[in-house]
Amino acid sequence: MPQTTAPSPRTRLRRHPERGHYDADTLAAIIDDAWVCHVSFTLDGTVHAMPTAHWRVGEYLYIHGARASRMLKALTDSDACITLAQVDGLVLARSAFHHSMNFRSVVAYGRFELVDDDAHKLATMQAFIDKVAPGRWDSLRPVTDKELNATTVLRLKLTEASAKIRTGGVKDDDADLSWPVWAGVLPLTLIAGTPITEPDSQVADYPQPA
Amino acid sequence: MPQTTAPSPRTRLRRHPERGHYDADTLAAIIDDAWVCHVSFTLDGTVHAMPTAHWRVGEYLYIHGARASRMLKALTDSDACITLAQVDGLVLARSAFHHSMNFRSVVAYGRFELVDDDAHKLATMQAFIDKVAPGRWDSLRPVTDKELNATTVLRLKLTEASAKIRTGGVKDDDADLSWPVWAGVLPLTLIAGTPITEPDSQVADYPQPA
Repeated sequence: MPQTTAPSPRTRLRRHPERGHYDADTLAAIIDDAWVCHVSFTLDGTVHAMPTAHWRVGEYLYIHGARASRMLKALTDSDACITLAQVDGLVLARSAFHHSMNFRSVVAYGRFELVDDDAHKLATMQAFIDKVAPGRWDSLRPVTDKELNATTVLRLKLTEASAKIRTGGVKDDDADLSWPVWAGVLPLTLIAGTPITEPDSQVADYPQPA
Repeated sequence: MPQTTAPSPRTRLRRHPERGHYDADTLAAIIDDAWVCHVSFTLDGTVHAMPTAHWRVGEYLYIHGARASRMLKALTDSDACITLAQVDGLVLARSAFHHSMNFRSVVAYGRFELVDDDAHKLATMQAFIDKVAPGRWDSLRPVTDKELNATTVLRLKLTEASAKIRTGGVKDDDADLSWPVWAGVLPLTLIAGTPITEPDSQVADYPQPA
């Protein structure tokens, strides 16, 4: 079970502190539910950020990329800030000012470390596939040494991280409650559509994840 | 119509350059389709990032927040990097190595500027509401001076930005095409669900956006 520290000066929520969460389970659930995180770092005095797929094993957030990546190289040399956010709904109030969004977001700080042990790399690639399509790993053409060598895997320990969550309905001023406009929440959900099978797929039907 | 410059050393895609786009229309479409961007910047020597709602008017990306926000204040003092990404599908290949995601992402660099003219602020708040719920603005309780003063609006000109797009099917090694596993794409789409009307809403039915 991942553990996190208490809020740090960087992660403690100052605005809407009631929306802040620092426990490992809440962080893990939001991280696991997102396909992409945004990794910010500085390189040659400039701030950069890149959207990248991620996965989590225990208290570590993993990312990967091509070995030649200039940005991945830079990440082990300086601290990073990782963010991700899921929008769960549009909150439509009676006033523009009180419009809002329901969301779940995470901000984490730390230094990525290189995962250079081949067995570790292979195990964590399986964890990534397990996130994308549970149970699929054993049916895949096995990873080759060349592929393993071409891939850089980095991980960051989730020791300084916060989650921010807004849920629920509209929070309007009392004086506006009788304003003649629809007020409520339009939920938004990321939905999987009909699988598109490759023309030359040897198996015709998408296997529902285990 | 927003215009962007040619690829800069910071925005030119080095990996998968065929996925790179730098034209204003492509950038605008991806930015408009996302609810949240991630704003990275440095403050006191540390890299920070925050997920925040955004909208676009012409060649400017707008964000807003509480006037008291420490982070918004910092943004006009240093360059920022803005990222956003939409995941459109999971690409399930025959090998772990060729698994991928279909996505549309944007990376932009620049300096935010304060929007401090009240008429401009008000007009751009309307643009934000128009993004969230087209046609809704005129039915809302009007913005007060106090609300206008409590809100900080910043904008960034999209002059140094790139988009990255992956679409289509699986790209496996030829030797793997006969591997006996399902191969294809699982599309992912952010879908609006059934509107949840506030108990005290004066209008019973969610008005379909104009």
